[in-house]
Amino acid sequence: MRKRLLSGLIAIAAIGALAPLAMRAANSQPTAPLLADVDETTLSELALSYRILVNEGVLDAYGHVSIRHPKDPNRFLMARSGEVAPAYVTPNDIMEFDLDSSAIDLRGRALHSERFIHGEIYKVRPDVNAVVHSHSRAVIPFGVTKTPLRAIFHNASFLGEGVPVYEIRDESSENNDMLVNTNAKGRALAKVLGAHPVVLMRGHGDAVVGPSLQVAVFRAIYTEVNANLQIQATMLGGPITFLNQYEAQKAQGMERTWEAWKRQALEREPTRR
Amino acid sequence: MRKRLLSGLIAIAAIGALAPLAMRAANSQPTAPLLADVDETTLSELALSYRILVNEGVLDAYGHVSIRHPKDPNRFLMARSGEVAPAYVTPNDIMEFDLDSSAIDLRGRALHSERFIHGEIYKVRPDVNAVVHSHSRAVIPFGVTKTPLRAIFHNASFLGEGVPVYEIRDESSENNDMLVNTNAKGRALAKVLGAHPVVLMRGHGDAVVGPSLQVAVFRAIYTEVNANLQIQATMLGGPITFLNQYEAQKAQGMERTWEAWKRQALEREPTRR
Amino acid sequence: MRKRLLSGLIAIAAIGALAPLAMRAANSQPTAPLLADVDETTLSELALSYRILVNEGVLDAYGHVSIRHPKDPNRFLMARSGEVAPAYVTPNDIMEFDLDSSAIDLRGRALHSERFIHGEIYKVRPDVNAVVHSHSRAVIPFGVTKTPLRAIFHNASFLGEGVPVYEIRDESSENNDMLVNTNAKGRALAKVLGAHPVVLMRGHGDAVVGPSLQVAVFRAIYTEVNANLQIQATMLGGPITFLNQYEAQKAQGMERTWEAWKRQALEREPTRR
Amino acid sequence: MRKRLLSGLIAIAAIGALAPLAMRAANSQPTAPLLADVDETTLSELALSYRILVNEGVLDAYGHVSIRHPKDPNRFLMARSGEVAPAYVTPNDIMEFDLDSSAIDLRGRALHSERFIHGEIYKVRPDVNAVVHSHSRAVIPFGVTKTPLRAIFHNASFLGEGVPVYEIRDESSENNDMLVNTNAKGRALAKVLGAHPVVLMRGHGDAVVGPSLQVAVFRAIYTEVNANLQIQATMLGGPITFLNQYEAQKAQGMERTWEAWKRQALEREPTRR
Repeated sequence: MRKRLLSGLIAIAAIGALAPLAMRAANSQPTAPLLADVDETTLSELALSYRILVNEGVLDAYGHVSIRHPKDPNRFLMARSGEVAPAYVTPNDIMEFDLDSSAIDLRGRALHSERFIHGEIYKVRPDVNAVVHSHSRAVIPFGVTKTPLRAIFHNASFLGEGVPVYEIRDESSENNDMLVNTNAKGRALAKVLGAHPVVLMRGHGDAVVGPSLQVAVFRAIYTEVNANLQIQATMLGGPITFLNQYEAQKAQGMERTWEAWKRQALEREPTRR
Repeated sequence: MRKRLLSGLIAIAAIGALAPLAMRAANSQPTAPLLADVDETTLSELALSYRILVNEGVLDAYGHVSIRHPKDPNRFLMARSGEVAPAYVTPNDIMEFDLDSSAIDLRGRALHSERFIHGEIYKVRPDVNAVVHSHSRAVIPFGVTKTPLRAIFHNASFLGEGVPVYEIRDESSENNDMLVNTNAKGRALAKVLGAHPVVLMRGHGDAVVGPSLQVAVFRAIYTEVNANLQIQATMLGGPITFLNQYEAQKAQGMERTWEAWKRQALEREPTRR
Repeated sequence: MRKRLLSGLIAIAAIGALAPLAMRAANSQPTAPLLADVDETTLSELALSYRILVNEGVLDAYGHVSIRHPKDPNRFLMARSGEVAPAYVTPNDIMEFDLDSSAIDLRGRALHSERFIHGEIYKVRPDVNAVVHSHSRAVIPFGVTKTPLRAIFHNASFLGEGVPVYEIRDESSENNDMLVNTNAKGRALAKVLGAHPVVLMRGHGDAVVGPSLQVAVFRAIYTEVNANLQIQATMLGGPITFLNQYEAQKAQGMERTWEAWKRQALEREPTRR
Repeated sequence: MRKRLLSGLIAIAAIGALAPLAMRAANSQPTAPLLADVDETTLSELALSYRILVNEGVLDAYGHVSIRHPKDPNRFLMARSGEVAPAYVTPNDIMEFDLDSSAIDLRGRALHSERFIHGEIYKVRPDVNAVVHSHSRAVIPFGVTKTPLRAIFHNASFLGEGVPVYEIRDESSENNDMLVNTNAKGRALAKVLGAHPVVLMRGHGDAVVGPSLQVAVFRAIYTEVNANLQIQATMLGGPITFLNQYEAQKAQGMERTWEAWKRQALEREPTRR
């Protein structure tokens, strides 16, 4: 009897405070073997980056993050699609792709239709080792109006004096499906991105790149923050003093941000946007 | 003694992590028999949709979701009213209605005064199998101004080049009570809805429909998101590039959204708007 | 075995979520005797209303709620001040006041300097049994501009075609301290309130009244919601269709709101605004 | 034995949902000795102020708080930098600085590059015993436009009829790095601050000072709130009635705020902005 009580208690407790973790474990699919030649930390950090970006309001039920394969510059790593929303990506969901965005070992899994964003950017930007694609909300208004998104504060200095906007109609005509779901469209997007750190996608979101996962995540987050600040400053009226070319070029330390975001992602269940 | 300790422990645990579940159980009314001819999963998902829509900021203490009866197209299922707020709907709160929105088996329960929204739409829209009525906050400003709500980004492509606004004064004169609480008003609303996926209700909220519960919920959520984005884009000034007719017609995958929202609803207590 | 179970239990409890309640218990002050002639439910609901209003973004570290004494119309009940922030008010913090806002039994406690808002309103509004004073954030912009706050959607129909603004300078000259901290100022405020349900206080917040605690809380919450909606509609530009005199006069059911807010307040620790 | 178990249980439960802290402890670096001549409460409150300011949306992954050394007016105390984000500062992270912002005992730790903000303000403002530097988000738009930030409601009366803006280009030319990372820049900032409680930093954030930690934290929080309110009032259009000189000079009680914020910080894990 006492035993049953205790077991029940444990069961209840498991459903209780712990439900988030417990359920994730229970619901998760049979464990697939990890990618053999990628170390576990790399996979963990990539998976975690999805949750960080959910916590910070950049990803919602959509979006994806990739990194260039640490040992093979002609490959990249990204989560599978299917029913795995960004907040729930685990290392076992990470898959390997070539630069045409074909899966190396498909294993019957569903893929993100817009994986071509990643592959085509890695082809033409050897300096880039991570790519974030999101529907970052404050960013979208800048893609659909004539107002350029510019660096309004120093944490977003990387935005410089403006970032380009990819208009899918230019490549795919008025009759298009809004999605960068072919290599051709990926190439067109990468061309508009050019040497910039960010490219807006009209009526859709953006793609943000960086020399490392940490930098790309940092940029994706502060692009969203900067967009919000620029909307608010616009509402105050009058001319806005943006960062000038010198201010925009100064590097900034960001050693604390990754650590902070990572701890929050590990300590908490995903928050809603 | 040990027993008392354990009981105490259980008590503490009950107040503790578990308070949410424990209290719900304790507070809930005597269990009514489930609807005999509807499978439990269907009822669970419908109940869960209420919480999903609270989590995503579409429902607050008001609003309701219905589905067409899976076995009888002349019936629909929806939660009772009374003291059951959306965040706390359970399968036992689901009731069955005919298309005049009369309860099949009232059991003395309170009903939503605006259930006629649902019945009248099901009558004239055989393609519709789910209806969401809410006071979705970003949507309301579009119902009271001359600015049409239009698809500004691809996740809300279903909004197309604008959705209609139901002005209750047109049917019910200046002297009206703002509520769609009769079959006549429901019919008038359904007529304004026409073949659209969404109809705004002036000074009130909206009604969103879909071929399935998942699609209707998806649309309700992204209607709110789109409205927020359109307000922000308006603040930036200048012409806005909305989705054109082709872009608006393309279907989009939404397989991840339901799974993500469902997991969040199961793992968390309801969040405030 | 039992030991292991218990250790497991302790571990789980440690991960558990109980800290908030546990700590509150540990931190709370020595229990003062409850007000002798007021039933416990009344005191609990009043205390809970403070937390509900924090959860819904109406109160922050400031603000107070009172009810008219259920047995003596010449008395009212309100929380003490001191270090007790709204989110942490308990039944033991509730004190009794006469309509001059003097404490019946001070017990050395600190009082809210603006308690005169409550007493003076109860004096002239026999229909009022509850008063909420807050710095409700979306409301403040309407007090400092010429834009009248009006009912924009049916849940805030009580706002009607506008609510008055109390300008403290009118009574207390340009050289004033912004606070309604005397009976004279309370009288002036009550006079501006007149027969309305809400009075804005310029550069300060508002006072909201109702025939019951539940109605006053409901109104305080939907005044904040309406203010947000009106700001957003203003940003869309063009004329706004507000509720007309008939629409504003229709009563609305609100039976679900109190139940929902109460459950959330009981189940959760206070959220930040 | 059982007793000890139970005590442990209670203790652990008290640390409770404190899992966050527990994990922090587990993850945190080897404990450094506390500052010998500063009492533990002072260090705890300073560390806690970082978390309070994260909870209230003033600090994110950046920003810092300092206090003047309670026993030596020529020293100040502030957290180290490195991987310690504001939400995770503990008493062991607090270090001692002279007024040139050099660490008294570096112990190989990383320092905030902008510590000079603090030292230079303490030099010229003997009335100041605490300084907050943040990228407070609603404040930034006021630094980049011509709209002065002014007291719009009584909780922010300290802002008076406007606060100054520090333009780093004035001191450091167009070619600058946006950071107050030298004594010279700190001096320039302190000069612009003058006798004010707040100085905005163009494209960066602000610095807020007070006679005590509690007052400086209060001011940092209500500067952010006031900025949000002023943006909203601006959107409503027309002239805004700000606090006049008399209203701005009246002191206000703030005894409840610190207590409330502190309890929330102790009871909860850090929230995202």
